[in-house]
Amino acid sequence: MRSSRWLLAALISLATLTPALADEGMWSPEQLPQLAPALKARGLTLDPLTLANLDAYPLAAVVSLGGCTASFVSGDGLIVTNHHCAYGALQYNSTAEKNRIVDGFLARHRSEELPGAPGQHVYVTDRILDVTAKIGEHLHPWMSGAERYQAIDKESKRLIAECEAKAGYRCRVAEYYGGVSWRLIRQMEIRDVRLVYAPAESIGKFGGDIDNWMWPRHTGDFSFLRAYVSPSGAPADYSKDNVPYHPSQVLRINPRGVEAGDFVMVTGYPGRTNRYRLADEVEQAVSWTYPTRIKVYEDSLAIIDQAAKKDPAVGVAYASRVAGLNNYLKNYKGQIEGLSRADAVKQKRSAETALESWLKDNDNDANRGYLAAIAKLRQAIAADASTRDRDLALQLIGNANLYSAANRLVHLAEARGKADGERDTGYQERDWPRIKASLEQMQRRFDPAVDQRFMVYGLLRYVALPAAQRLKALDAWLDGAKDETAIRARVAKLYAGSKLGNSAERLHWFDADSKAMAASDDSLIRLAVALRPELDALNKADEARYGDINEWRTGYMQGMLAWKKAMHQPIYPDANSTLRVTFGTVQGVSPRDAVTYAPFTTVAGILEKDTGKVPFNAPAAELEAIRSELASGGNFDGFASKKQDTLPVDFLADLDITGGNSGSPALDSHGRLVGLAFDGNWESVSGDWLFNPKLNRSIQVDVRYMLWVMHAIDHADNLLREMHVEVPDAE
Amino acid sequence: MRSSRWLLAALISLATLTPALADEGMWSPEQLPQLAPALKARGLTLDPLTLANLDAYPLAAVVSLGGCTASFVSGDGLIVTNHHCAYGALQYNSTAEKNRIVDGFLARHRSEELPGAPGQHVYVTDRILDVTAKIGEHLHPWMSGAERYQAIDKESKRLIAECEAKAGYRCRVAEYYGGVSWRLIRQMEIRDVRLVYAPAESIGKFGGDIDNWMWPRHTGDFSFLRAYVSPSGAPADYSKDNVPYHPSQVLRINPRGVEAGDFVMVTGYPGRTNRYRLADEVEQAVSWTYPTRIKVYEDSLAIIDQAAKKDPAVGVAYASRVAGLNNYLKNYKGQIEGLSRADAVKQKRSAETALESWLKDNDNDANRGYLAAIAKLRQAIAADASTRDRDLALQLIGNANLYSAANRLVHLAEARGKADGERDTGYQERDWPRIKASLEQMQRRFDPAVDQRFMVYGLLRYVALPAAQRLKALDAWLDGAKDETAIRARVAKLYAGSKLGNSAERLHWFDADSKAMAASDDSLIRLAVALRPELDALNKADEARYGDINEWRTGYMQGMLAWKKAMHQPIYPDANSTLRVTFGTVQGVSPRDAVTYAPFTTVAGILEKDTGKVPFNAPAAELEAIRSELASGGNFDGFASKKQDTLPVDFLADLDITGGNSGSPALDSHGRLVGLAFDGNWESVSGDWLFNPKLNRSIQVDVRYMLWVMHAIDHADNLLREMHVEVPDAE
Repeated sequence: MRSSRWLLAALISLATLTPALADEGMWSPEQLPQLAPALKARGLTLDPLTLANLDAYPLAAVVSLGGCTASFVSGDGLIVTNHHCAYGALQYNSTAEKNRIVDGFLARHRSEELPGAPGQHVYVTDRILDVTAKIGEHLHPWMSGAERYQAIDKESKRLIAECEAKAGYRCRVAEYYGGVSWRLIRQMEIRDVRLVYAPAESIGKFGGDIDNWMWPRHTGDFSFLRAYVSPSGAPADYSKDNVPYHPSQVLRINPRGVEAGDFVMVTGYPGRTNRYRLADEVEQAVSWTYPTRIKVYEDSLAIIDQAAKKDPAVGVAYASRVAGLNNYLKNYKGQIEGLSRADAVKQKRSAETALESWLKDNDNDANRGYLAAIAKLRQAIAADASTRDRDLALQLIGNANLYSAANRLVHLAEARGKADGERDTGYQERDWPRIKASLEQMQRRFDPAVDQRFMVYGLLRYVALPAAQRLKALDAWLDGAKDETAIRARVAKLYAGSKLGNSAERLHWFDADSKAMAASDDSLIRLAVALRPELDALNKADEARYGDINEWRTGYMQGMLAWKKAMHQPIYPDANSTLRVTFGTVQGVSPRDAVTYAPFTTVAGILEKDTGKVPFNAPAAELEAIRSELASGGNFDGFASKKQDTLPVDFLADLDITGGNSGSPALDSHGRLVGLAFDGNWESVSGDWLFNPKLNRSIQVDVRYMLWVMHAIDHADNLLREMHVEVPDAE
Repeated sequence: MRSSRWLLAALISLATLTPALADEGMWSPEQLPQLAPALKARGLTLDPLTLANLDAYPLAAVVSLGGCTASFVSGDGLIVTNHHCAYGALQYNSTAEKNRIVDGFLARHRSEELPGAPGQHVYVTDRILDVTAKIGEHLHPWMSGAERYQAIDKESKRLIAECEAKAGYRCRVAEYYGGVSWRLIRQMEIRDVRLVYAPAESIGKFGGDIDNWMWPRHTGDFSFLRAYVSPSGAPADYSKDNVPYHPSQVLRINPRGVEAGDFVMVTGYPGRTNRYRLADEVEQAVSWTYPTRIKVYEDSLAIIDQAAKKDPAVGVAYASRVAGLNNYLKNYKGQIEGLSRADAVKQKRSAETALESWLKDNDNDANRGYLAAIAKLRQAIAADASTRDRDLALQLIGNANLYSAANRLVHLAEARGKADGERDTGYQERDWPRIKASLEQMQRRFDPAVDQRFMVYGLLRYVALPAAQRLKALDAWLDGAKDETAIRARVAKLYAGSKLGNSAERLHWFDADSKAMAASDDSLIRLAVALRPELDALNKADEARYGDINEWRTGYMQGMLAWKKAMHQPIYPDANSTLRVTFGTVQGVSPRDAVTYAPFTTVAGILEKDTGKVPFNAPAAELEAIRSELASGGNFDGFASKKQDTLPVDFLADLDITGGNSGSPALDSHGRLVGLAFDGNWESVSGDWLFNPKLNRSIQVDVRYMLWVMHAIDHADNLLREMHVEVPDAE
């Protein structure tokens, strides 16, 4: 395939990178040797070549938690990550009497360590294989979108199955540069992960949602887990007999941290960015996607809020969903604000025009092909918009847990009747344990009345759709219901005729086949059985659309790579939850005229912000300790920064990170741990589309604050010893 | 009187002032010679002695607008002040077709200048006379509070009447140091004040209420008026024959402005501060006054909002009251926030303890007297609290315009039957024109239905009062009505039986005597007549309370002066709407950990903030001009700061100002105009109680921005010429 040749050529050109451009970029490890001159120029003393090596220091110590990043900090599998990444483990181990979320937790001995939540796994990436050629073999220009999708899907599933033949491993095929290249990622999946230590929530989540995405920040967002394996060293479910995992590499700690202007880098698993999207896609996001989601999320919160006011138990059940909705709401508002302020559509449009001009000016078969792909991609994006209202309505109906559980169960039953390789993604045997777990866990997180309200809310959007976009089975079930009263009555009847609200009943259907489903008299299952052919057809249409878009986006990105190569400009792939490295400088930011934010916050800010009320309720012992250190000009047991003459809490850097990077180690020029990335500033929210080196900043908790809290507040000296950290001013 | 001796002694000690302490202080002009060393040390090149002289430069050029400050900037009576201080004049000259508030206004010739609103007067202070001895003559230790009040009131009225015998002058007796000293202030009252120039609201009020009390700020808060007098040079009502007033002094303009670190001072008429209040008074403000007012103001806004939603005309009528309520709401929230953050009660309490300890340690008759006064003052403050609910309820009922107009008319009729010197303050002949004007203007600012709602709201609080605090006449009128429905019915009947909603009818009663009032069958007047004796008794009780508090506060302040004198610490009187001078340094601020605000905002910030929507809708011509200057590296017609390499907009200084200082000239070390004070930062809101030199900052519009807008945007070059300002880069 042409694509990979272009990619290689583009990568080689990275050696001419100017350091000024280097702060943008979530580089794939194999790109780092080409960046070596820039990295050295910026102060990296670690050999850049080793940075490309998954088996070497420091990458081998950096792991994924599935949505978060973490690192090994001791030979006995001790893991450091963000407090918010271990929140599930804390929640799982909390009761009303012993609320470990609020109080924090410290295991003074291994025997005290607590099992994490069932889904809390550690993924150690040990192999990244370029499979572009293998997938490319099956792709042909004459293929339809559906055929292209099928070809990619089939080969991906084959590669994954082959890769996962080794027990204890999880594999995936990841798309790079919109389909220009493909890689097979293999990760060891450690399933026994225990809670070792977390500070009180009033440190670990100090500032809460109010400070989320904000600077100045004073959050001690760190915690510790430990990976356990079977005595033979293989991944295993939780067992008393399991032993600590011995990682091949362990991060070294630099208890003196970094200062303003210092080199810093972050390695981790950024989830998703949209840096190479077309202007039309940005425009759609700003004018439709985000505003619509804001409206829909606000409505959803109102539904939950109304019910929670009457019944506090509803509030508890939906607490996590409410937090998620609020988090996204704030994010979407930030996206709109940032993209509008940056005039992102205009910026993207002019970059696109420049690309197209270049392709036209450098006329040849390949470039003509890229131009055609761009035009087709634009059409496909516009076509997507024509069904977005239906897609949204169906998605909103699916927010009703029981309704979507019924659909999933019927889909699963259908999948059971096929060979594993023929099953839809998400319904293969490897996915069954997760489906089962989610059916089990649903019970604690839903309320039948609220569930019905969600379904009604989605249906009200559905009935407003034009006839051509409606589903026959859904219309038949609605039986002419159009207004809220009638729809409510239909949904009430539907729920009254189903036993799926019962956990055991859901799990009973987990093992059923299509025949059993077809014979069911459960009203929700009957609706799901009726809907199945049409939902399947929609899914097939989506796949075909994906096949098309993938083809054209590949062409567009090949054009982009050719153009950037000609300009000797670096190009890194969009984030796709694979291991990346980003590097930059510890520095503050001037977010607007006359305002300057320092790169470090200090403990004085904790005293300033503290109100005694959540989320600004630092522990009394911490307030006391800070006051006494500040009053006596103390050096915080030697953890204070000599340069700043106080104890830093969090720091800013111009690192290019996004969701998924949470918990990522921030490393100094020697590769030693100096902090943990946990957030970006407000201006970086829209950085997923457009990185602005002047405004975008990552936020890290400072290693000195972590160590001081561990030593002076929580007395977690057992862990300091395990990490070989000496308290500078130990008495 | 002992008090004045103490004062003089205290003032002499000011010569030992350390500059570090000097930024706090709204100094009375006669104090400035004592501050000379400090002023010179800080860079003042103007002779500090002239600063004490009301007839000399610059004080003779600084005038009051009654609630705002302004200055003469040309020999032909041209006056510069804030945009928001000329808002009334703009409003008065605006119609739906010709909205001068929105568009701004420029008179290119004198003939185009527009008459200001009826109340828009200019007050030129020409004499400040110490009358402490004259008032003291009538005060004796054996007097009751009521007698003391009467003695002060009588002598004050006599002094004022004597002073106002000179036509065209307005006089008042002002209390300093809580009654330690008294001064008679004489001001020439210029009544023909015309609108000369104001930029568009989108410059003059850029940022609106959102940016109110906020930094960074980008408001061009300036405008120009002109004072006119009769051809003979005497104050006169508006007439075509009037001529420009020729002030004795005119401020010189420094078109190069000031830079960070420069000396700067502000002269003006700060309204009121509470720097010497007892801890108990701060505590009452934080725990009761502000929270209660916040609740009450929010309720009032809701009443107006509900009515305005149904009838937009209500919104127009109450626009100014809504703006005022919102302004106070924000202020009160800032007060609570600031006072709580500073732990003001604790600070005041410990300062008080220190004062009391010193008085005890230095035992003598005088000091024993001061200690007793402090104890009694505390008791009086506590006693005040016992009737605060009733006072508030009556005040809230009085928010009903018609109800309070009836009370005022009946009070006025009663006053007409007395000799002028015997009339209550506010009801003397000198007050009649204002009473009449307010009765006339009421029409445009009220709606009968909303008025009734306000009265009902107040009455609902009233009926909740204990029996001992109730008024017999009000209870009799209520006729047992207790709940909202019943009270509404009573109020509706009251309003139905009155013609006071009619402007002519109100003015008819303006001339009535008590006999006519007693014979009236207008229901509101009948209620007011019935209430009059009890309201009068409450008023008398207030006067007696004032007499007591005045005596004890005088003693407390004498103790304070003695103590501060012993410590060689400066002491300035609380603001009381008299002419003051405050000096300091142009400098930024760090409002909280990791945040630094620069001392200057720049035009780039206008582009950043502009959204095209009110209040962030800078004029297209300005945006265009700024963009073009910034793109070309232009110097803004020479008005750009060379040091900053751009055009500054507003600047911060550590000047001690408060409400009433709006429009005050900011002067450089040579006494030249470099800006206009128009606001304080958020942290300074609570500065009225407690000045924090680290956090409190005044906000000034920069003279360079004013001049550039005048020249480049509004082409007001006629005014630049009149002020002898040359455009540095004129073509």
